[in-house]
Amino acid sequence: MIKVGIVGGTGYTGVELLRLLSQHPHVELVAITSRKESGMPVAEMFPSLRGRVDLAFTDPASAPLAKCDVVFFATPHGVAMAQAPELLAAGVRLIDLAADFRLKSTAEFERWYKMPHSCPEVLAEAVYGLPEVNREAIRRARVIGLPGCYPTSVQLGFLPVLDPEAARVAGGDLVELDSLIADCKSGASGAGRKAEVGTLLAEASDNFRAYSVAGHRHLPEIRQGLEAVVGKPVKLAFTPHLVPMIRGIFSTLYARITPRARELDFQALYERRFAAEPFVDVMPAGSAPETRSVRASNFVRIAVHRPPDSDLLMVLVVEDNLVKGASGQGVQVMNLMFGLPEDAGLTQVPILP
Amino acid sequence: MIKVGIVGGTGYTGVELLRLLSQHPHVELVAITSRKESGMPVAEMFPSLRGRVDLAFTDPASAPLAKCDVVFFATPHGVAMAQAPELLAAGVRLIDLAADFRLKSTAEFERWYKMPHSCPEVLAEAVYGLPEVNREAIRRARVIGLPGCYPTSVQLGFLPVLDPEAARVAGGDLVELDSLIADCKSGASGAGRKAEVGTLLAEASDNFRAYSVAGHRHLPEIRQGLEAVVGKPVKLAFTPHLVPMIRGIFSTLYARITPRARELDFQALYERRFAAEPFVDVMPAGSAPETRSVRASNFVRIAVHRPPDSDLLMVLVVEDNLVKGASGQGVQVMNLMFGLPEDAGLTQVPILP
Amino acid sequence: MIKVGIVGGTGYTGVELLRLLSQHPHVELVAITSRKESGMPVAEMFPSLRGRVDLAFTDPASAPLAKCDVVFFATPHGVAMAQAPELLAAGVRLIDLAADFRLKSTAEFERWYKMPHSCPEVLAEAVYGLPEVNREAIRRARVIGLPGCYPTSVQLGFLPVLDPEAARVAGGDLVELDSLIADCKSGASGAGRKAEVGTLLAEASDNFRAYSVAGHRHLPEIRQGLEAVVGKPVKLAFTPHLVPMIRGIFSTLYARITPRARELDFQALYERRFAAEPFVDVMPAGSAPETRSVRASNFVRIAVHRPPDSDLLMVLVVEDNLVKGASGQGVQVMNLMFGLPEDAGLTQVPILP
Amino acid sequence: MIKVGIVGGTGYTGVELLRLLSQHPHVELVAITSRKESGMPVAEMFPSLRGRVDLAFTDPASAPLAKCDVVFFATPHGVAMAQAPELLAAGVRLIDLAADFRLKSTAEFERWYKMPHSCPEVLAEAVYGLPEVNREAIRRARVIGLPGCYPTSVQLGFLPVLDPEAARVAGGDLVELDSLIADCKSGASGAGRKAEVGTLLAEASDNFRAYSVAGHRHLPEIRQGLEAVVGKPVKLAFTPHLVPMIRGIFSTLYARITPRARELDFQALYERRFAAEPFVDVMPAGSAPETRSVRASNFVRIAVHRPPDSDLLMVLVVEDNLVKGASGQGVQVMNLMFGLPEDAGLTQVPILP
Repeated sequence: MIKVGIVGGTGYTGVELLRLLSQHPHVELVAITSRKESGMPVAEMFPSLRGRVDLAFTDPASAPLAKCDVVFFATPHGVAMAQAPELLAAGVRLIDLAADFRLKSTAEFERWYKMPHSCPEVLAEAVYGLPEVNREAIRRARVIGLPGCYPTSVQLGFLPVLDPEAARVAGGDLVELDSLIADCKSGASGAGRKAEVGTLLAEASDNFRAYSVAGHRHLPEIRQGLEAVVGKPVKLAFTPHLVPMIRGIFSTLYARITPRARELDFQALYERRFAAEPFVDVMPAGSAPETRSVRASNFVRIAVHRPPDSDLLMVLVVEDNLVKGASGQGVQVMNLMFGLPEDAGLTQVPILP
Repeated sequence: MIKVGIVGGTGYTGVELLRLLSQHPHVELVAITSRKESGMPVAEMFPSLRGRVDLAFTDPASAPLAKCDVVFFATPHGVAMAQAPELLAAGVRLIDLAADFRLKSTAEFERWYKMPHSCPEVLAEAVYGLPEVNREAIRRARVIGLPGCYPTSVQLGFLPVLDPEAARVAGGDLVELDSLIADCKSGASGAGRKAEVGTLLAEASDNFRAYSVAGHRHLPEIRQGLEAVVGKPVKLAFTPHLVPMIRGIFSTLYARITPRARELDFQALYERRFAAEPFVDVMPAGSAPETRSVRASNFVRIAVHRPPDSDLLMVLVVEDNLVKGASGQGVQVMNLMFGLPEDAGLTQVPILP
Repeated sequence: MIKVGIVGGTGYTGVELLRLLSQHPHVELVAITSRKESGMPVAEMFPSLRGRVDLAFTDPASAPLAKCDVVFFATPHGVAMAQAPELLAAGVRLIDLAADFRLKSTAEFERWYKMPHSCPEVLAEAVYGLPEVNREAIRRARVIGLPGCYPTSVQLGFLPVLDPEAARVAGGDLVELDSLIADCKSGASGAGRKAEVGTLLAEASDNFRAYSVAGHRHLPEIRQGLEAVVGKPVKLAFTPHLVPMIRGIFSTLYARITPRARELDFQALYERRFAAEPFVDVMPAGSAPETRSVRASNFVRIAVHRPPDSDLLMVLVVEDNLVKGASGQGVQVMNLMFGLPEDAGLTQVPILP
Repeated sequence: MIKVGIVGGTGYTGVELLRLLSQHPHVELVAITSRKESGMPVAEMFPSLRGRVDLAFTDPASAPLAKCDVVFFATPHGVAMAQAPELLAAGVRLIDLAADFRLKSTAEFERWYKMPHSCPEVLAEAVYGLPEVNREAIRRARVIGLPGCYPTSVQLGFLPVLDPEAARVAGGDLVELDSLIADCKSGASGAGRKAEVGTLLAEASDNFRAYSVAGHRHLPEIRQGLEAVVGKPVKLAFTPHLVPMIRGIFSTLYARITPRARELDFQALYERRFAAEPFVDVMPAGSAPETRSVRASNFVRIAVHRPPDSDLLMVLVVEDNLVKGASGQGVQVMNLMFGLPEDAGLTQVPILP
């Protein structure tokens, strides 16, 4: 059994980790920390866990994290990098669900997250935890920067058309790299379990809005990921919107197809690219995915379209922002790191309706 | 492996059976029928099942139901009783999620369901599938009439105060039997997956209403169940309301405490009654349960209250109407019928948020 | 034109007052205060008011409240009583939407609101602003304690059966006064526009729960109102529930009918009682009201039922908690105080769907 | 008073017309028809209209439509064109909320609506009822084809950048006309008040999906409108999505800015274009509009953005699909046709929250 600790267990990604890990056949939950709720049984805050999780929150200072095989950080940005060196020194592996180890450039990190990066040497060895791109590196990693929820869906949706090998076969880029668009829609759990007026039910339900239009923190992360794949600069417009629902991200991606690729079979391209992926489902041509088809599961479903009356490629991607967009991806990465079956603990069927 | 068939798989209880049974360690899904969708892969109608259920809907006429060990009927009222004799003759056991085998009186059935009962001899042997009341009879049953969603929550909530042994100890009834109240609230999936104006999102969301106020079909079923427990007539007002949510039933139950019982420890009474039950959770005194604490799980949670300034007992009960209120209870009953662990295939942690 | 000021305009009752008063034919909005948002144009916080309300929030200290004819307090409890003496001395009339002037007993106020009452002499002259009970006193009042949202619906629903004249005709009480039940359901705007985890969309949507089960502040207010009508003590169980919707209260009221009244025509009783009321609609026998039928309007709709198989009277009441339950009732009261048509500015048709 | 008839009053655009017209100072409602509900009081189907609309539905055959000054068709496609000649002959003016008189090409109509156009001569004189483009023609029209809900928002959002005069000043097109994108999101009332599984609350709430991805009927209408403005062909990808809310359309529009226009002040361009429009609100630079800011009102709000890291223009448009997207626009057009103030009966403040 792998000994697991969770730092910061009172938010949505924390309770989702608890849901997944408490059902995982190879995991022993050892500690879950919360400075504020220290001493409170976890199942008192989250009655859904009554009878399933017996732990109480412990203070981070006294939690036996150094005895864990792996520690998840489900904390605000900045916490993981503060604790990383000590835990690594103790032989513990780390999976950070926040942004501390996502951006390779500390300057970019500091620009978007408004705090200095205290730990560049750990950042240097950290692996970006997107299995569909970095599977082998993840297996060997000591530190994982887990992708953000939007970046997971946008990168998976654009991967096949940015693949250098596909471009080589076609004799050049398949799509114009200077006008990619990601029009993304997220449920309100993406904002976290924080007391805020903007995501109150009375504000956000029966309503639809865009937000962070002037620039969202996930933009540099997506760009970094896409550029790493294609090997040259890309320009991307990324517009997040808030949907009156709890879970789910729906990304509508647009790219202008280059003349050389207008006859290409994009459906086949996508199916080939993801044929071996356990959690990426390329739907049949003509499909319209919906977020509930992956609700509470680690699947991503993708549909590939050519809108009538245009030279555009349109890719529709659905994921559960708390599972494949966060905690489920964390478990998938942990499975890889510890040589377990990649889908261990992640075989739940989505909840519909 | 138990061979299972499902008749009528296109509704919500059908797809929920598929979700649960496709994850059940001791079940082989053999057939799922739909007259209308015959030939369509199940996962095409319900993409949440892609990669998990490979069956296609088959026409009821040609489905290999007679080779099953057990057949679930997730059909409109009247279907199960039409097919029961033939299947029973073939040695198949039946679990009906509709109302054909719930009411012991054919006259009551005909009054409330507006159709003749074609199968009184099967009805006579059918067992009402509420494990918390009828566990031993269920183990031996060939035919189960599975309780309705509301009746499950209301009966479980009233059981302890109607227990004859508790009354014997107290020297008489604990509550007045002529003025029970069940003020119940259900999510919209309770209305089924039927094209209807009243449960359209644009009608039913951001809205709250009572319905079937003049008399709901679950009233005689609840009354029959309560009277079977207490052994004498009861009077009950049952008011169903529609909540703008997908899953969940919340029952607020009121009973007037008799003078002899006003000092009784009802919390202890409830805890004792359900101590051995795997799916009934009596919450600590003072708790306020919420439907999401059981979302997509087979649990029922109960809180017992004495409202200030009154002689009333108030019991709050939450369940997922599609799980403990229907398909999950069906699986629980099947487990009992086939000598499996009672919670086999039913250990999923509720989905929160 | 009546000069109107609003103290505390950043909450839901404040913006609802702005919506109603900006369309009122006899009102001039003079000032709206907010300590925190001083200087910000109101329409910047609430874009729905762009082009309709040109005021900016002003600091309470410098707002020209003393020049108003009437000032509404849409503030937390305790603010109105602090400012009341000075404004009254300046000849301004006051309508408090909080609880400062609702409870006649300062001891009760202090028990439920956990603060001393600083202003008992103003409380003594304050009139409880429920027009259907106190219309004449309201016309002459200088200070109004406006009823809470739940108390409005519960009192209106019980009024006719507690009417002493009806009891006199029947030869005694129509219902048992020691076991009244108000099972109430409210949309999330009732919790106000405050940053809180419990009413986040991701917590409160697709969910249903009871709250304040051990005792809600509106209980003493409802009891005070009912006892004032019937002239003797009543016992009431009041259970509030949170509905995943924005606006609306649905109150399901139960009372046990006394033997003498079991043949009474309650439908006729209710119709007579409210025949002259401009904002109370007694629906035809057999109706099931829904909250959206009064959405964004000042109407209350009531349906009277005798549940089958019981000796209970059941009354269903719907209101918009922000209109008849708060700001609309405030405007209705203001109209009475200033001799305007009672429905001036309140003639909007409910929004459906 | 203008005598108004409504054909087909049982859907959402019908009841919204009733809400608006019953409050209109210059309108007398004369008849509202429904074949199916003939004889039923309108307020029985829509209790929100109790006390406000006294009419009953009448059979179309016997309704006094020929005595009306104007008749609205809130009917399925094909009904208006069948009745138009007779009513026009009687001197009645027509406003069709369906698609019969939107597309100038009968071939296009027949391709997208799968029925022959029976009335090309009336179509030839019909005016497309978008006041911001066709105000003068509307004043003189006898027959109006009212724009669809999506087309209203998309056309208003693209109008300023397609304006030939702006292109003349800039020396060429401001944006590339062959890659316009309209990523649109609509509430469920856009699907109408029809019994359908796909828009049930239990299907469509807590969910987000695209639909009609292979081609939506509003595509040719939008293209026709845009091409009429710019005077040359455009290519447009139009993707509709279903949002779990009742009312509201949010259109996220993207266009690639031509090199010549990259320094242009688009904010100023939009403000100038709509300066005189009573119902189009160009929000301040940097704004993020939300659908509730126009809920139940005839306003459209527009925000103009330049996404960072791109050469794209992004325009965000919000409207209430039942008001400016249908019935409210119908009333606005009627006001123009009859020389009334353009905002008569349309001055309601949006409902927030």
